[in-house]
Amino acid sequence: MTLSDTQLEAFDQQGYVFFPDCFCEAEIALLRAEADGILKLDRPEVWREKTGAPRTAFAAHRFSEVFGLLARHPRLVEPLRQLFGEDVYVHQFKLNAKAAFEGDVWQWHQDYGTWARDDGMPEARAMNIAVFLDAVMPINGPLLLIPKSHKQGVFAAGHDKATTSYPLWTLDKETVTRLAQEAESDGGAGIVAPTGKPGSVLMFHGNLVHASPPNITPYPRKIVYLTLCAVSNHITKFTRPEFIAHRDFTPIVPGDDDSLLDYARAHRVAAE
Amino acid sequence: MTLSDTQLEAFDQQGYVFFPDCFCEAEIALLRAEADGILKLDRPEVWREKTGAPRTAFAAHRFSEVFGLLARHPRLVEPLRQLFGEDVYVHQFKLNAKAAFEGDVWQWHQDYGTWARDDGMPEARAMNIAVFLDAVMPINGPLLLIPKSHKQGVFAAGHDKATTSYPLWTLDKETVTRLAQEAESDGGAGIVAPTGKPGSVLMFHGNLVHASPPNITPYPRKIVYLTLCAVSNHITKFTRPEFIAHRDFTPIVPGDDDSLLDYARAHRVAAE
Repeated sequence: MTLSDTQLEAFDQQGYVFFPDCFCEAEIALLRAEADGILKLDRPEVWREKTGAPRTAFAAHRFSEVFGLLARHPRLVEPLRQLFGEDVYVHQFKLNAKAAFEGDVWQWHQDYGTWARDDGMPEARAMNIAVFLDAVMPINGPLLLIPKSHKQGVFAAGHDKATTSYPLWTLDKETVTRLAQEAESDGGAGIVAPTGKPGSVLMFHGNLVHASPPNITPYPRKIVYLTLCAVSNHITKFTRPEFIAHRDFTPIVPGDDDSLLDYARAHRVAAE
Repeated sequence: MTLSDTQLEAFDQQGYVFFPDCFCEAEIALLRAEADGILKLDRPEVWREKTGAPRTAFAAHRFSEVFGLLARHPRLVEPLRQLFGEDVYVHQFKLNAKAAFEGDVWQWHQDYGTWARDDGMPEARAMNIAVFLDAVMPINGPLLLIPKSHKQGVFAAGHDKATTSYPLWTLDKETVTRLAQEAESDGGAGIVAPTGKPGSVLMFHGNLVHASPPNITPYPRKIVYLTLCAVSNHITKFTRPEFIAHRDFTPIVPGDDDSLLDYARAHRVAAE
């Protein structure tokens, strides 16, 4: 899978590209079943909300064969190699649960702000790719993006260690308000919330300002975030646990496009 | 304004009716300016979020001439007189701020659950009418309703005094999940979020289960909730402050349909 000229232009201008039908139902069924199992595990990579509900599972591609296949899936890896013009490695892999009723807020932030400050990543040549494992709806805590906010570099941020269980460099209200106004100024939306069925994929620039509200509905909203970084842009500071900011900069060798379907078929056979 | 047969049927089946263009821009501009002033007041009727941002102003129809006009506006009062087949009085009047960035959650609840338990209201012959003073969008903490959930009476509830500054009888997760599933069972939505421009109005049954998520966006989402009760159904227990649950059961005499516009005109002249 490669990005078209239209997609490349949209990404450059808006800071994100959305693919409504990237993975099929069979692939997502496999990933979702695996995710549900992982979120129940009691291990250091699985972080919880203040209520005890699962919040984030890190590095599942290291201990789950299924997520290992996803982390090197060509539909995710190829577009990033195309964008960065070089090989990429996995900087972070996380499964965000945004559990029904209990999934808490992620405050306004830029991903690269954290990668630069905490991990010493030289440039914003890394990016999050969000794979929807559940339907993402306006009501169940969708990702909110401020279009075009990736054009102004890294903003000042405060280190929020209080709001949720996960420390985050967050932007102040004045900056978020100004950026939304600027996004509106030429007739566009100040904030967009890409929503869609399971299997949709969202790629967004490391400097794109985003957040997600709590989920107060009965509908869980699991998303896998695969963070791929250009190999030449690897991190230089190791302040966070290895399972949060990886130190293995080996280039990904993309797998087969059918790898998840093949696994699902083999697994079904094995289970019978 | 009276409800059509179609609207009456929708209300009976779904538990709510939405009017996208009930008040015009000039009327809303007047109400919004008044609301912004009221939310800054330091008086017992104005409650704040834990952060200090305004959350709710009660009984503004008693100390604001503009909101006094709204509380007896025929577009709000007449449909309720029609529905209940008798005169109505103001049981509660509140302006919910859902402030930009700081507006907090309202957990899942039924309004009549509180009116029955705390105020001794005999039957669910009272109703909230929501008047949107700002654009209500999917992203800025809209009201979430579970269609048809008004058909099963009052559910068991716990008295939540911890989540926000306003004590509320809230439903458990199992009940909310079941009701959303039931609403979905005949092909409808499990949860709806009526959204629309300022001036839209939403009427919903006293037993309709609803909630609203926090507002993490720069867009404020002010809504006036006018609670009208059939006069013969007046409350019998006075456990809450009078400005929260009124004890004056005098029937409303509806005002003039142009009352807000007339006020705006007169006010503008006076200001020159």
